[in-house]
Amino acid sequence: MNDGHVYIFDTTLRDGEQVPGCKLDTKNKLIIAERLDELGVDVLEAGFPISSPGDFDSVVQISRLIKNSKVCGLSRAVKKDIKVAAEALKDAKKSRIHTGIGTSDTHIKYKFNSDREKIIERAVAAVSYAKSFVEDVEFYAEDAGRTDNDYLARVCESVISAGATVLNIPDTTGYCLPEEYGAKIKYLKENVKGIHKAILSCHCHNDLGLATANSIAGVVNGARQIECTINGIGERAGNTSLEEVVMIMRQHPDLNLDTNINSKLLYYTSCLVSDSMGMPVQPNKAVVGANAFAHSSGIHQDGVIKKRETYEIMDPSDVGVTESAIVLTARSGRAALAYRAKNIGFELDKLQLDKVYKEFLKVADLQKEVNDEDIPKIIAACRL
Amino acid sequence: MNDGHVYIFDTTLRDGEQVPGCKLDTKNKLIIAERLDELGVDVLEAGFPISSPGDFDSVVQISRLIKNSKVCGLSRAVKKDIKVAAEALKDAKKSRIHTGIGTSDTHIKYKFNSDREKIIERAVAAVSYAKSFVEDVEFYAEDAGRTDNDYLARVCESVISAGATVLNIPDTTGYCLPEEYGAKIKYLKENVKGIHKAILSCHCHNDLGLATANSIAGVVNGARQIECTINGIGERAGNTSLEEVVMIMRQHPDLNLDTNINSKLLYYTSCLVSDSMGMPVQPNKAVVGANAFAHSSGIHQDGVIKKRETYEIMDPSDVGVTESAIVLTARSGRAALAYRAKNIGFELDKLQLDKVYKEFLKVADLQKEVNDEDIPKIIAACRL
Repeated sequence: MNDGHVYIFDTTLRDGEQVPGCKLDTKNKLIIAERLDELGVDVLEAGFPISSPGDFDSVVQISRLIKNSKVCGLSRAVKKDIKVAAEALKDAKKSRIHTGIGTSDTHIKYKFNSDREKIIERAVAAVSYAKSFVEDVEFYAEDAGRTDNDYLARVCESVISAGATVLNIPDTTGYCLPEEYGAKIKYLKENVKGIHKAILSCHCHNDLGLATANSIAGVVNGARQIECTINGIGERAGNTSLEEVVMIMRQHPDLNLDTNINSKLLYYTSCLVSDSMGMPVQPNKAVVGANAFAHSSGIHQDGVIKKRETYEIMDPSDVGVTESAIVLTARSGRAALAYRAKNIGFELDKLQLDKVYKEFLKVADLQKEVNDEDIPKIIAACRL
Repeated sequence: MNDGHVYIFDTTLRDGEQVPGCKLDTKNKLIIAERLDELGVDVLEAGFPISSPGDFDSVVQISRLIKNSKVCGLSRAVKKDIKVAAEALKDAKKSRIHTGIGTSDTHIKYKFNSDREKIIERAVAAVSYAKSFVEDVEFYAEDAGRTDNDYLARVCESVISAGATVLNIPDTTGYCLPEEYGAKIKYLKENVKGIHKAILSCHCHNDLGLATANSIAGVVNGARQIECTINGIGERAGNTSLEEVVMIMRQHPDLNLDTNINSKLLYYTSCLVSDSMGMPVQPNKAVVGANAFAHSSGIHQDGVIKKRETYEIMDPSDVGVTESAIVLTARSGRAALAYRAKNIGFELDKLQLDKVYKEFLKVADLQKEVNDEDIPKIIAACRL
């Protein structure tokens, strides 16, 4: 891999699945896991094995199924968790244990009733123990977003010495601003001894709508893994959207960052996850929403018809959407109407178009969206 | 207003309404407009009057209704558009005409088949003409995100001389990265002669999931207006989400930026717009999604019960959500189960909890979400 390769760590089936109302059983998880493997995710976090027998079983079966991606299991910095994760992963072709502990003062004091030194001891012990099962151990410093950088650097150094290969720096509460999160990654890249032995990973939450921007700020500043989910699903306002970070890097070649993702499978994978989990994707969701490539205003439609690049930065087919729709509403102009009419066989001259457009606006004001089957009726009503 | 006041320009009823499948009639628009006024938006873009008789009528009626917000109407840089906009706005207590033209080379060449100098002439003519009707004229430089900064600065200078009070710098295609968009605003703030006479405005689209981050980068670099919509609705992947930018500024007091928005009305306004337009909000939408404050994983629930701040950065009541929900799933831990059981009257000791938790996991693996009415049955099955 070259320096600009960003690993995609998909956590749809773990952090993504931590969603109230989620409806995934093991069978559906296997179907999704196979599609994620095909999509090209580098690491597939399959579950949190200690959390329930059902989740344990899913991780076991996903481990047996997956051909290319590395399969990962979550654990707390607790021996039993780690042992059970290792057990669940034992049949995987490539595996990783993901373990960690809260490092912010709020977490140290209120969750663990502990202190900074003891937390480092627990972190080191967890990583060392995980290393006795697998070579690849990722450490998460929970609530790193609110952890003092100097202490966070010490935690990172300690776990690298214990053998951690990946350092996950989560903005657990989704509070960071992009500049702040980027600066944190930069600080670690520049101040952690032995940082060349490990990969920094961005794990951002979307509570303020900034997960995508924060992850990009992270990789621009030296991180080389993004933890994300399909459709940005996850606890609360969710995780970073896989499809957004992948397409930002693809659309901005100047960043010199890219992933292994086959973007043409994004739309299909999005639909599959949404349907399987019963988690609707809003129409205006970036990249994969039903309207992401739909133009309804006259000004925009006119532009797109003249030259697609006036309003579209992505070719819809690059993410697996076959055609950008020109939707007709009361906000559409003559050009869009003429375009759609022509598509179904009516070539209108300027005078005809003026007449038909007037009639079209009446219908559009009444029924909001005008469909192909309405157009012949509108034209008929004009008695051209 | 102090230096850190950021004006909120709501375009839910104009750019937001440019959504395929939108179902707003004038009556619904009036209801929403009244709520936006109450929410505290500084400017309310009510429509694009020339686009259809229905839209013209909506702008007329909204102008008559609104008490506090300034009412704004959109127009192209075309005399007839501007005249019709002025006519629609004539009964408003405070009004603004929003006019403009594409300034990127792509727009100049393919949409207008024109050149840079002629575009400036048209921009100046439009602003001057709009000034003959109203004092407050906002100019949009469409596709400013892809417009060369030097030329954009010349456009801005020219329209300020013609009387423009607000300069809208749209990232029309949603392509910019936050640093790039912030740098553009900074460049204009530092290089446009007479910039002190006008306010720079951010108008960002969400095609790559960056509208919120770009808008914040804009105000951090000197813009003082954000154009946004409730729930981020709008053409394609939508506009900047009002609720996100407002809460970012509120939650980050160090930015020294704030708005007039009464955040306690955000959740209600979000539901109203979603219902009226038939535009669902995905559960994991930041700030206003159904799950935005719901915790389902054991680790998180345990933390929130010990101290809410471990996983929540916002008090849900600040955005009008009355309680963060502790949702029980197979990913929940003992603490969450004990908490919910206690809420409905069952105090469990450690041994009892161990038994009940085992039974709970079986039920949770089967039915995904465990509700209050399931808990007594689970406890009964344990025969404590």
